[in-house]
Amino acid sequence: MIRVLLVHEESLLRSVLAEWLRREPGLDVDDTPWWGAAARIRSLCPDVCAADLDCSDGHGVPPLGDLCPSGTGGPPALVVLAHASRPGLLKRAAEAGALGFVDKAGSPDRLVRAIRSVASRERFIDASLGFGFLKAAQMPLTRRELSVLSLAAAGASIAEIAGSLHLSHGTVRNYMASITRKTGARNRIDAIRISRGEGWV
Amino acid sequence: MIRVLLVHEESLLRSVLAEWLRREPGLDVDDTPWWGAAARIRSLCPDVCAADLDCSDGHGVPPLGDLCPSGTGGPPALVVLAHASRPGLLKRAAEAGALGFVDKAGSPDRLVRAIRSVASRERFIDASLGFGFLKAAQMPLTRRELSVLSLAAAGASIAEIAGSLHLSHGTVRNYMASITRKTGARNRIDAIRISRGEGWV
Repeated sequence: MIRVLLVHEESLLRSVLAEWLRREPGLDVDDTPWWGAAARIRSLCPDVCAADLDCSDGHGVPPLGDLCPSGTGGPPALVVLAHASRPGLLKRAAEAGALGFVDKAGSPDRLVRAIRSVASRERFIDASLGFGFLKAAQMPLTRRELSVLSLAAAGASIAEIAGSLHLSHGTVRNYMASITRKTGARNRIDAIRISRGEGWV
Repeated sequence: MIRVLLVHEESLLRSVLAEWLRREPGLDVDDTPWWGAAARIRSLCPDVCAADLDCSDGHGVPPLGDLCPSGTGGPPALVVLAHASRPGLLKRAAEAGALGFVDKAGSPDRLVRAIRSVASRERFIDASLGFGFLKAAQMPLTRRELSVLSLAAAGASIAEIAGSLHLSHGTVRNYMASITRKTGARNRIDAIRISRGEGWV
């Protein structure tokens, strides 16, 4: 029996998907929204955690660290449901140690195959996500630029970003100009729109 | 028999939800992504169209007009799957003539009830969406301000917005200042973030 914890933000779709997975022989399925996932992993100790990377408001970065809580006897094997068009989230999932990557543009049977693969600690990657991984590998922004961009995307002013990262106003402006150029954006707002759409901030 | 067309952007979740709906007696269910929905409505002439307002990239405004294509013998009764936290999308769905509003934070059984209600041309509104409708009614921005904001959110500069709406640069700046004040934002980028999150642009 493979104990699976399904993490998805929206109750309606989550319960239908959990019910669908429960019909598969050999799967014991629980489900939770992102909020509360860490506590459920601690109490249930699932073998596999299958998490949809899209959060409830449709953007923003999911708290992937919650799926590897400390104090458990080894975290569950992680499968994520992802889009090729959001390389930032693919990269974050890879960095969080995900073993399985299922394309949300594909068939639900792939999710079952991915769960069985990662339960045996084998990688599972949908070929259709390849372009997303390529884009993730080509990400042009530095870690510092990403920090600046994340604060800007959350609505912080140049002064607030400067204060928060201990930089001068001019340096923050230079970072923003470099981010705008590297993302091929027309301006600062366009750079945020592009980066958010791709799941970088 | 109620002919239902399910519109949802993500293949994996859409096919699981369609399969779940097909187990209900009296429902004949087809499904499609947003792209192609208009053509499917023309060819299938469904009684009910059940559409998830969240588009594939998790934000942006779905093409609701596609669900009421011209040249059909009366458009299908429309049920939408929605969030209370996105009043802009609730308002757009109401303006597009939706009869049913199902909260994605609720149970899938509600969707079945909504489909049966609107098939008899009766309204169905999940009580938990009430706060979203209240926020929609309190929307402080004018139609003109929303046009300016939509262009800004898409990455257009002040000059481009001015050119596109036949306004002076100063007038566009005044609109942006007024939008920022009314949305309680810290600055222009924050105003876009807030409005996009709520589904206004």
